[in-house]
Amino acid sequence: MSLAAVRAVPAGGAVVRVAIVGLGAIGREVFRAARGRAGLEITAVADPAFAGRDPGEVAEVGPAGLTVVADVAEALAGGAADVALVLTGSSVSDVVPAIEAAAAEGTDVISTCEDLAHADLSAPELARKIDHRARGAGITVVGTGVNPGFVMDRLPLTFAAACVRVDRVQVFRVVDAAKRRGPLRAKVGAGLTEEEFRAGVAARRLGHRGLPESCALVGLGLGWVFDELRSTIDPVVAERPGVAPGRVAGLRQSAVGIRGGKEIVRLDLEMSVGAPDPHDRIVIEGDPPLDVLERGGTHGDRGTVGTVLSAIPAVVAATPGLKTVLDLALGGGG
Amino acid sequence: MSLAAVRAVPAGGAVVRVAIVGLGAIGREVFRAARGRAGLEITAVADPAFAGRDPGEVAEVGPAGLTVVADVAEALAGGAADVALVLTGSSVSDVVPAIEAAAAEGTDVISTCEDLAHADLSAPELARKIDHRARGAGITVVGTGVNPGFVMDRLPLTFAAACVRVDRVQVFRVVDAAKRRGPLRAKVGAGLTEEEFRAGVAARRLGHRGLPESCALVGLGLGWVFDELRSTIDPVVAERPGVAPGRVAGLRQSAVGIRGGKEIVRLDLEMSVGAPDPHDRIVIEGDPPLDVLERGGTHGDRGTVGTVLSAIPAVVAATPGLKTVLDLALGGGG
Repeated sequence: MSLAAVRAVPAGGAVVRVAIVGLGAIGREVFRAARGRAGLEITAVADPAFAGRDPGEVAEVGPAGLTVVADVAEALAGGAADVALVLTGSSVSDVVPAIEAAAAEGTDVISTCEDLAHADLSAPELARKIDHRARGAGITVVGTGVNPGFVMDRLPLTFAAACVRVDRVQVFRVVDAAKRRGPLRAKVGAGLTEEEFRAGVAARRLGHRGLPESCALVGLGLGWVFDELRSTIDPVVAERPGVAPGRVAGLRQSAVGIRGGKEIVRLDLEMSVGAPDPHDRIVIEGDPPLDVLERGGTHGDRGTVGTVLSAIPAVVAATPGLKTVLDLALGGGG
Repeated sequence: MSLAAVRAVPAGGAVVRVAIVGLGAIGREVFRAARGRAGLEITAVADPAFAGRDPGEVAEVGPAGLTVVADVAEALAGGAADVALVLTGSSVSDVVPAIEAAAAEGTDVISTCEDLAHADLSAPELARKIDHRARGAGITVVGTGVNPGFVMDRLPLTFAAACVRVDRVQVFRVVDAAKRRGPLRAKVGAGLTEEEFRAGVAARRLGHRGLPESCALVGLGLGWVFDELRSTIDPVVAERPGVAPGRVAGLRQSAVGIRGGKEIVRLDLEMSVGAPDPHDRIVIEGDPPLDVLERGGTHGDRGTVGTVLSAIPAVVAATPGLKTVLDLALGGGG
């Protein structure tokens, strides 16, 4: 984006019309934040669970003069929006119908779908199809959020941009699940026995989505090809307030990129009830070395809302195709 | 940049041919780092002070089989390079001849010229001319480095991208000048009397260049228009090893963006001999608030070399014109 284009935003240039697809917890937060944001106008909302209702009422901020429709294609019909914020599933296949509907209308897509942050990893065939469809339709499609999309991929790569040489990247994120929403506590297995925890991980009911995607993004950004990308999920069993003795307090999850027998990327995520000293930490071994600490850590939900909204100007300006956060310039953010 | 394009870098796609303009301390560091970097080839070097010599000898890494030429136009003649790294002056006017020469050959420009990081601030007329010329020639021109270009502008804006709302941005950077090159100790006024220091500041011999540019960039990225951008430089007089009692140990410099009577951006930079606890710290008041600490701080010279080299893929991919670091995507960096 040129200086002139960036400046056009505060100068009150074109308002970006956004559609919100999905009114779950994050969808409602995005609705509330987008409503108050200069330069944005919410023009459509889709969610079958709330069809017929006013989305402002659903989001508990008073009537918005809009009606939620069940179907995403109906919401986007007639080019109702410039950008669709797709805040629904975690698998790439979950968001394909919304991307199809957006492509049919020439509407850009920003999604919190974790696997879409680097769709090539879990769904290379689908990724190729989405990229092809997006280019044909002239739309940009990107997956983002705080994690994946920010703390464990975009941030370390931003710091790495100040390095002459990078030998190894490590990111450590510790989240106190007691301070987050119920669904987070559930997905980290709080209160389960170890056996139940391991069964839940095996059935993919438990665990944080998108950590291998972040690891692959770090490799992509550094031009590193891994021999192996290793992903593990283990229970945290510790005495914590509100957790019965011997029960699981949360999880410790890792994604590790290995080349030539060496760990060159390590992403460690602990999300547990009562986790001591929550933080994000980025350690880069290289020239110069870097060690960055964010005490408290970036808030998961609020950070996700922030990254989704701040991606809008960059996505509007981007060339067509399936992109990653590495393709988005800062310009126009905030 | 598309996924495919990013991947083309490690896959050994096109080598980017770079010219190095200026073989001062930073120029020599960039020469050494670029020589060892995959995907880069140094094809020309210009510096009147070293004309006729082998730049590898000048940079003390052994012969490179190249000859330094005096004139930048001669170095770039015949499209010898894809990107010119212009590592010379601090004022926008200083680098205009190099940009002109690059435009004549269709060569992109990355420069450590501090004022070029946001040329509009100190030289709006020249900025317009450079932008016009760059668009006409189909080249991208950008000023970057660690400061301005990274620690006090790009980094806080990257963190701000995870915020739903930003109320205030503060960055604090403390550099121990004893651990840096002689020219840095000189530009911070170490060893002077207070009177000499104030005279040096008035004559613009002392002080760090580019801090107001960083402040303006933060405003630009957040869409904030300041009523006033205030810049101050004061001496640090303190007992420090190697500094005579009562003499200046260094400087404390600030750039503050004010709107509606409120400081909404504050950049504080201390560079002094023996400064205790060197660090970079970013504090964002907003939703969510953020407090980020990099103990030790990003090394000035090495960080500058890193940012210059990692900007190359983004600049090659960018649309033509005079850009800022806010316009560059991460893709291909590292």
